[in-house]
Amino acid sequence: MTTALIAIDWGSTHLRSYRLGQRGEVQEVRALPWGVRQLPDHGFDGAFSEAVEGWPDAPVIACGMVGSRNGWLEVPYVDTPASVAQLASALAALDTRHGRRLYLVPGVRDPSRPDVMRGEETQVAGLLATYADAPGSTDILLPGTHSKWVSVRHGRMTRVATVMTGELYGMLCRHSVLGAALPPSVADDEAFDQGLLAARDSGAAGALSRVFLARSLMLDGKLAPASVPSYLSGLLIGEELRAALAAGWIAPRASLHIVGEDALVERYVRAATVFGLQLLAAPSDTTARGLWRLAALASLVPPGVEA
Amino acid sequence: MTTALIAIDWGSTHLRSYRLGQRGEVQEVRALPWGVRQLPDHGFDGAFSEAVEGWPDAPVIACGMVGSRNGWLEVPYVDTPASVAQLASALAALDTRHGRRLYLVPGVRDPSRPDVMRGEETQVAGLLATYADAPGSTDILLPGTHSKWVSVRHGRMTRVATVMTGELYGMLCRHSVLGAALPPSVADDEAFDQGLLAARDSGAAGALSRVFLARSLMLDGKLAPASVPSYLSGLLIGEELRAALAAGWIAPRASLHIVGEDALVERYVRAATVFGLQLLAAPSDTTARGLWRLAALASLVPPGVEA
Repeated sequence: MTTALIAIDWGSTHLRSYRLGQRGEVQEVRALPWGVRQLPDHGFDGAFSEAVEGWPDAPVIACGMVGSRNGWLEVPYVDTPASVAQLASALAALDTRHGRRLYLVPGVRDPSRPDVMRGEETQVAGLLATYADAPGSTDILLPGTHSKWVSVRHGRMTRVATVMTGELYGMLCRHSVLGAALPPSVADDEAFDQGLLAARDSGAAGALSRVFLARSLMLDGKLAPASVPSYLSGLLIGEELRAALAAGWIAPRASLHIVGEDALVERYVRAATVFGLQLLAAPSDTTARGLWRLAALASLVPPGVEA
Repeated sequence: MTTALIAIDWGSTHLRSYRLGQRGEVQEVRALPWGVRQLPDHGFDGAFSEAVEGWPDAPVIACGMVGSRNGWLEVPYVDTPASVAQLASALAALDTRHGRRLYLVPGVRDPSRPDVMRGEETQVAGLLATYADAPGSTDILLPGTHSKWVSVRHGRMTRVATVMTGELYGMLCRHSVLGAALPPSVADDEAFDQGLLAARDSGAAGALSRVFLARSLMLDGKLAPASVPSYLSGLLIGEELRAALAAGWIAPRASLHIVGEDALVERYVRAATVFGLQLLAAPSDTTARGLWRLAALASLVPPGVEA
C-alpha cells in the first residue's frame, strides 16, 4: 500500500487527514478536533504532527481555514473566474518544523460582491473531477454554517455567494426569544414544511419579515414548542432557496449539485421540491478527491492516475 | 398636586411607573430594573410595592409583558381590528396583596399573520390621543428589539407585524463570526449608509443574502473592523424598511409615525430617506399618554380631562 499523498481538510473547528494511495484511493482517515480556532499545545505544529504522525514521507496538501488570515499561513485568494488549474498553480508552500513541506490551497474570491470561500473551492474541484465527462458549466450548493453558492462556467468558478443559514439557525435557537424556554426539540417534518412554505410565500418581502411567526404560531397553539427548531430550519433553508432564485444565482426549475453532510443534504433536497428545484447529491469525500486533483495538477503526485 | 392615576409601563426588562395629575400630566416618574424576566424578592408583588410605594391611593393601570403568559396575570389578546375603546373595555383587574387593585391592558393579536404585541398597543393609543384631530388612518413604526409595524384604519388597529431587527443585530454582533474579534466599535455614518444601500440594492433577494458582506468587505479592506456594527445596523434597518415596502405594509413614498428611543428614531429617520419614506417622530411619553387615555375610557379617571 504505497502512500502517494497526505491530504488534509483543515477548517475552523475540525481537522481531517487522509492517507491516499497511488490512484488517489483513501487508505486511512484521521479526524482530530484541532480546527484553526481550537489548537492543541504547540499550536499548528502540534496539530500537524498528530495529523501525519507515523505516515510515510509523501507530499502533504491542505485546504480550508488553515490558509486564512487567522490560519497557519495566509494564502492570497484567487479571483473569479478561477479554474482548478489556476488554484493548483497558486499553492503556497510552508516548511514545517516537522521537516515536512505542506502545500496550502488558496481560497477563491469573487470581487464583484465581494465574497470569499476557503475549503469549498476544493470540494468544487473534487466534484468537477468526479463528473469529468459532464459539461464544464454547473451550479453547486455547499450548505452548512455558511452556505456557499458557486457557479461554474466553462470550467471556471465564476460566482461565490455566502448565506449564513446554519449560523443564523444556531443563533436563533440558542440566543433569541424564539428558542427561549423550549422543551427538548423533535425533528418535525410537518413543522419544517410549514416553515418552508412561510418562506416561499413571503415573496419579495423575504422570510426575515416572518421569523417572529415561530413565536406567534406557538402562542396561538398552531406550532408545538418542541417543533419550533424544525419550523425555523424550514424557514431559513426556504429563505436561502428563495433568495438564490430572486438574486438570479440559479434559474427557475434549475438542477444543481449539492455537496454536504447527509442529514443536511436531505433537508435541502426536501426543501428544493417546494421551490421546483432539483438537487443532485454528490458522492462523499469530495474534499479528498479535490485535494488529489489539485496535487496531480501541481505534479505532486504522478500524472495520469486518477481516483 | 392631586394624583389621579398611577400608570405603569412594565416590560420584559424594565418597569417605569408614572404618577399622573388630574389632567394626565406627569408629576413623578420611577424607573426600576424589575422587568417580567428579572424580578426582586417577593416577585411581582415586591416589584409592584416599589413601583407605587408612598404614592396616593389612586387607580393603577399597567401595560406590557406584565399581562403576558409569563407575566403576573395573562390577559387575553384583543383581535384586530381593535379600537382603543375596545382595549379599554377589556382591562383585566388584579387585586394585589398590597390592597391595591391593578388594571392590566390587553395586547393586540393580528390573527391574519398571526402576530401579536403587548405594550405597543398602548403607545399607539397615546399617539392617537396626541393627534386627536388627525385622520383616524395612519401607519406607525415602533422600532426596537422587536420592531412593530401597526396600521390604523378608521380608528382601529388593523395590522400588527413584528420584525426582530434589534434582537438580530445584537445576536450578529455578539454571537456570530461577523462580530468576532472586532475592536471596540465606533458609530460610523458612512458604514451605516453603506449597509443601508446594500439592503436597498438587494431587491427581492433581501439582505440576508448579503449579511456576510460585513465580513468579506472587512477582509477586502473596504470596511474598517470597528465599523462593522454600524454596517450591520444599516443593513438590518434597511432590510426592515425594504421588506415593509415589499410586503405592502406601507405604500411607496408613505409618511408614517415613529415611536421609540431618540437614538434609534434618528437612525430610522436617516434610513427612511434612502427608501423615499417620511418618518414623523412622536412626542415622548406616549406610553403614559396611552395609559391615561385607556384609564379615561374605562372611567378610572374623571371624564373629559385630557393631557
